[in-house]
Amino acid sequence: MTQPDREHAAVITVSDSVSAGLRVDMSGPAVALRLGQMGWSADVLVVPDEVAAISQEIARLADSEKYAVVLTTGGTGVAVRDVTPEATRAVLDREIPGIGEQMRAEGLRFTPRSILSRGIAGTRGRTLVVNLPGSPTGALQSLDCIVELIPHIVDLLNGKTEHEPAGETADTMRTS
Amino acid sequence: MTQPDREHAAVITVSDSVSAGLRVDMSGPAVALRLGQMGWSADVLVVPDEVAAISQEIARLADSEKYAVVLTTGGTGVAVRDVTPEATRAVLDREIPGIGEQMRAEGLRFTPRSILSRGIAGTRGRTLVVNLPGSPTGALQSLDCIVELIPHIVDLLNGKTEHEPAGETADTMRTS
Amino acid sequence: MTQPDREHAAVITVSDSVSAGLRVDMSGPAVALRLGQMGWSADVLVVPDEVAAISQEIARLADSEKYAVVLTTGGTGVAVRDVTPEATRAVLDREIPGIGEQMRAEGLRFTPRSILSRGIAGTRGRTLVVNLPGSPTGALQSLDCIVELIPHIVDLLNGKTEHEPAGETADTMRTS
Repeated sequence: MTQPDREHAAVITVSDSVSAGLRVDMSGPAVALRLGQMGWSADVLVVPDEVAAISQEIARLADSEKYAVVLTTGGTGVAVRDVTPEATRAVLDREIPGIGEQMRAEGLRFTPRSILSRGIAGTRGRTLVVNLPGSPTGALQSLDCIVELIPHIVDLLNGKTEHEPAGETADTMRTS
Repeated sequence: MTQPDREHAAVITVSDSVSAGLRVDMSGPAVALRLGQMGWSADVLVVPDEVAAISQEIARLADSEKYAVVLTTGGTGVAVRDVTPEATRAVLDREIPGIGEQMRAEGLRFTPRSILSRGIAGTRGRTLVVNLPGSPTGALQSLDCIVELIPHIVDLLNGKTEHEPAGETADTMRTS
Repeated sequence: MTQPDREHAAVITVSDSVSAGLRVDMSGPAVALRLGQMGWSADVLVVPDEVAAISQEIARLADSEKYAVVLTTGGTGVAVRDVTPEATRAVLDREIPGIGEQMRAEGLRFTPRSILSRGIAGTRGRTLVVNLPGSPTGALQSLDCIVELIPHIVDLLNGKTEHEPAGETADTMRTS
C-alpha cells in the first residue's frame, strides 16, 4: 500500500450554485491558499449539495491515498439543502467530535450563529476529513482553529508519532 | 405543501408523573410563556417517558406542518427513565450538535451538573426540534441560550434566508 | 435483580503493548488509586486495542452488576489503532455527550491536542461507562473533570435521587 502524500490535500466545494456554474467559488481557493501557506499543495473540486455526490467524492479522494487531508467547504448549515455532515458521516470510519466542538466554540467569538454550523470531522483509512463552513471567512476561521494540529494528526494516522500508550513510554518502565 | 406557521410552536412535556396526572406540569407552561414573550403562540402537550410515545408525538407534530418549532421538556437526564434524546434522534433528519453543546456550556454557569443534560436538537423536514431539561428553571435557561437564533433557523428551514453559499453572494461575483 | 455495589469500579486498560506484556500499565493503577481516594474500590483489567475485545469486556463488566462504574483508559486518540470510542458506543444504551465535551474543554487548559481525544461516556443498564485518555496524566486530568459528579450519576442510575421532573417537586404542587 502506498502511503498518501502527507503534504497534499483535497478541498471539496459543496455548492449547488458553484456546481452549476452560476457562482464563482471563492471558498475552495481561499482554503487552498491557506494550506499553501503551510507548505501543502491542494486540489480544489466541486460537487452539488447532494448526499450521494458528497459521500462518493470524499470516499474516492480518501481511498486514492493521494491526499492526507480532505476538507469540504459548504453545506454545514441548517438550510434544508445542507447535508454535508450527513454525507460525510456515512463514509467515515471514526469521528473526532472535538474538532467540530472547537470550531463552533471558537466561532462564538465572531457570531452567535456559529452554533448552527453542523460540521464534523473524522478519519477514513489514513485520511483526515473535516467539514468547514461555506463562506470564505467562516471556512478560514474554522480551518485556523485546527490547522496547527493537522500535521500531528497526519503523523498519527501514518504511524509516525507513537500511539499514545496507556503505560509509560520510557524504556526504564518496560518490563521486557 | 403548506408551509408551517412560522410563529407557532408545540411544547411536549415528557413526564410519567405529569402524564399520569400525579403532578402539575410547570415546565411546559413556562416554556410556552417564554415563547409568548417573543410573539409566538404555543400548544402544550404531555407524553410519558416512553421512547415510542415521544418519537411518535414529535413526528406527528412536525409532519403536521402546523409548527415551526417543536420543543420538549424533560427526560434529558441520566436516570434510567430519561430517554428523550434517543426518542428524538430516531425521528430527526439532521442533528444540530452545537445547540446541545451550547446549552450545556451555558448551564455550567449555574451548575456543574449541566454536563449531564443529554438534550439534542435537529430538524425533521422544515421543523426545528429541541430537547430542553425537565425543571422549569433548567428549561428556561436552556431555551434562553438559543431563543434569539430560532427565527433565523426557521427562516433558513423555509428558504427565507439565503442558503449560505460557498462562493460570493455579491452579484458582481456571479459568472452568469 | 441485585443492585450493583455503588462503591465499586472497574478500570479497563486498553493497550496492545500492555496486553502483550511489553509495557507496564501505569494508567489503570493511577485511575484506580484516584478512585480509592474517594472511597471506591477498583479492579483493573487489560484488553488489546481490538473493537470486539473492548466491547465484550465493557458489556461483561456492566452486565455483571458488580460495578457501578466502568472506566477505560487508552485508545481514544486518532492513531489507526485507537478504537475505544467505537467499541464503547456499540454497547451503550445511552450516551452522555457532555462528559466528553467537558473533558476536552478542560483539557485545553493543558494542551491544544485535547480536542483530539475522542472519548465518549454513557450508560449500559445501571452502569456508568466513561472513556479516559491513555496517558496517566491525561487519564487523571479527564477523570478529575467528572469525579465529583460520579456519585450523583450512580444515584440517578439506581433510582436513589429523584428523576428530575418536568413539574414541581414540592408536595404542595401535586394534584393528587
